[in-house]
Amino acid sequence: MPRNALYAQSGGVTPVINASAGGVIAAARRHPDRIGTMFAAQNGILGALDEVLIDTAQLTETHLTQLRHTPGGAFGSCRHKLKHGAELKRLFELFAAYDIGYFFYNGGGDSADTCLKVAEFAQYHGVDLTAIHIPKTIDNDLPLTDCSPGFGSVAKYVATSVREAGLDTASMAASSTKVFILEVMGRHAGWIAAAAGLASSDAASPPHLILTPEVPFEAGRFVRAMQETIARVGYCVVVAAEGVRDAQGVYLAESGATDAFGHVQLGGVAPVLAGLVKQHLGYKCHWAVADYLQRAARHLASATDLAQAIAVGEHAVSYALGGLRSVMPAIVREDNEPYRWRIEPVPLAEVANREKPLPLEFLNGDGLHLSPLGREYFAPLIQGEVPPPYRDGLPDYPRWQFVTGAKRLPAFDPARG
Amino acid sequence: MPRNALYAQSGGVTPVINASAGGVIAAARRHPDRIGTMFAAQNGILGALDEVLIDTAQLTETHLTQLRHTPGGAFGSCRHKLKHGAELKRLFELFAAYDIGYFFYNGGGDSADTCLKVAEFAQYHGVDLTAIHIPKTIDNDLPLTDCSPGFGSVAKYVATSVREAGLDTASMAASSTKVFILEVMGRHAGWIAAAAGLASSDAASPPHLILTPEVPFEAGRFVRAMQETIARVGYCVVVAAEGVRDAQGVYLAESGATDAFGHVQLGGVAPVLAGLVKQHLGYKCHWAVADYLQRAARHLASATDLAQAIAVGEHAVSYALGGLRSVMPAIVREDNEPYRWRIEPVPLAEVANREKPLPLEFLNGDGLHLSPLGREYFAPLIQGEVPPPYRDGLPDYPRWQFVTGAKRLPAFDPARG
Repeated sequence: MPRNALYAQSGGVTPVINASAGGVIAAARRHPDRIGTMFAAQNGILGALDEVLIDTAQLTETHLTQLRHTPGGAFGSCRHKLKHGAELKRLFELFAAYDIGYFFYNGGGDSADTCLKVAEFAQYHGVDLTAIHIPKTIDNDLPLTDCSPGFGSVAKYVATSVREAGLDTASMAASSTKVFILEVMGRHAGWIAAAAGLASSDAASPPHLILTPEVPFEAGRFVRAMQETIARVGYCVVVAAEGVRDAQGVYLAESGATDAFGHVQLGGVAPVLAGLVKQHLGYKCHWAVADYLQRAARHLASATDLAQAIAVGEHAVSYALGGLRSVMPAIVREDNEPYRWRIEPVPLAEVANREKPLPLEFLNGDGLHLSPLGREYFAPLIQGEVPPPYRDGLPDYPRWQFVTGAKRLPAFDPARG
Repeated sequence: MPRNALYAQSGGVTPVINASAGGVIAAARRHPDRIGTMFAAQNGILGALDEVLIDTAQLTETHLTQLRHTPGGAFGSCRHKLKHGAELKRLFELFAAYDIGYFFYNGGGDSADTCLKVAEFAQYHGVDLTAIHIPKTIDNDLPLTDCSPGFGSVAKYVATSVREAGLDTASMAASSTKVFILEVMGRHAGWIAAAAGLASSDAASPPHLILTPEVPFEAGRFVRAMQETIARVGYCVVVAAEGVRDAQGVYLAESGATDAFGHVQLGGVAPVLAGLVKQHLGYKCHWAVADYLQRAARHLASATDLAQAIAVGEHAVSYALGGLRSVMPAIVREDNEPYRWRIEPVPLAEVANREKPLPLEFLNGDGLHLSPLGREYFAPLIQGEVPPPYRDGLPDYPRWQFVTGAKRLPAFDPARG
């Protein structure tokens, strides 16, 4: 007898998380004898708790194609760490009501933890459930996988953006703006900022300075490095991770900007750095904050990243059907030239609640530049262009309206316990 | 006897200003009997004053192809308003020393003024010089032309970016970020912000609110409109021009943010708006500042914009050879469906020092949305994709090193008068 499956997206979305969803759905459809209905929870685990489920049978082949080229979360995502007690119990009531035998959770570190909790609860209570975690995070900080789906596309976006903005800065530097600062994501790890270093093709080309959370920020050192760069090439392009902090662990973005009313301004490390440049060097400075632009830029996705996002989705299903439990399909790098990779299962217990920091050897000795070793690691991840279809001059992203099913359970009461 | 020509780029660069340069150079090469050497000034008019000139004969056909797909200013640009007196006199000494009969100046409103000064000086002193202004500005505020080369590509970039980031915001809104704000360029005019409205395909889709300098900002009205949007669609995406100001003309970006040391923070209207949202509505809010990213994003250039940038360059040369003086090739819209345009000469005297504001009828009655009339105007300008070649996963932009010629004149002494 086939059993049903539940798929949910979790945490911040990526340009290619929908491609993983498509991989899961397509793979499940190839096994109707084993997997009956594949449900998707609306807005991640919250939709599971509230029993807002989408029967993915309503997705046509056109929908599956669209999943491969549309950013954001097709079914909605959420930030919610599943609580022991009432929430976990409710989830298993849902599993029972829908005969869910397979749980596919698509997210980063926090969702790996949630997925593991679910697997452990099932095992403890003797419930026949297979829980598989599907990796996804632009932060690239999941352990045991060479890289995380979503990251390669963000790396391609920031490297492209800094290369382009660098040409702009170079054009104007003789008489106007000499400094450009691009703030990228990375609260805890500098993977994205470091990958922007791929834009640099020689010692003179941008980015000239890379600031990561791993290397404690020192204002004096930053200002001197900038002066040296400007003396050498006439201008300076900086990429800064949002999580840049000093030796005491104080985030630069929280270094105290307040508005006229005395309210603390909402973050941004770039304007703080721009203030430093103006104060210490007096140069005209432009800054950009990529924010969601970088993690939604499906128009510039990496073909490698897209292929890996689809593959982890497909492997999740084959692992589940092959009897593996509590695993995550991980990307294994086989070779660099030419780049070859494969998918292998890794134990979820070793993934959950562990962050993989950027190796310091991916930066040069001064910690402000991408090292050859770092370049070797990042370069394959941004290869290949897979643009979405365009219509009327813009990416033709669908605006889906999926139908959710009638409820079978009483409304969830978190207090019930 | 052929005479020589001088080409210079001026002001902020665009994704397609090099395409105009390529148009000028290629067109001049078709008339060796009339135009001898085509020089390009390094760093705009500053290079002309300092006699740092590039003989464009060194540009191969490959270089000309690269000019069509490379952002920034190939020869460097500058922000410098040519002064009467010593500077103008020096320029004409250079013209005499190099037998310059044609001066092509590629820029926005300020450079139209410079170009006009040069033409008037020549006429007054009986110098045989043809001065042609080639339009370029992402601000789209040049008069007498339907649009300005550079603008269409920026419009395509911001509309794409807001559509993508909007999908991200929608995915997370149920449990996390409900508001996303994208700050775009436009200190004096809201052309770019308004064009971002093209991303919206129906009343529910982003951007939901557009803030322009033309519509005085009122915090209460903004907050109410945001609340209404969130009640209706669950989240709110805002596009704000950097030049948003209140009824007293005070820029929001200058509304008084200071850092821990009491220094005024370097601008940014997005963080100020985010602060308002947090203060009045308490929603989690993300914001991005596109800055140079938008005006350097050749990877997302509009085919229409690129074709027009090339055409104005080519027409500048044919006007010069046809005996027209003190004109600018302007883009004339012939029809909307299908979109057809042609190039016509307009008198430079009517272009210089005039800014074309965004027509208020391009916005809806509330001033916060793109109107159907506005959509009709903007839509054709972003049509068509013309991606650059990619190499190793990134746009393959050349890093030119053009040779500058030996000097013939004594060094420029601005004090000489």
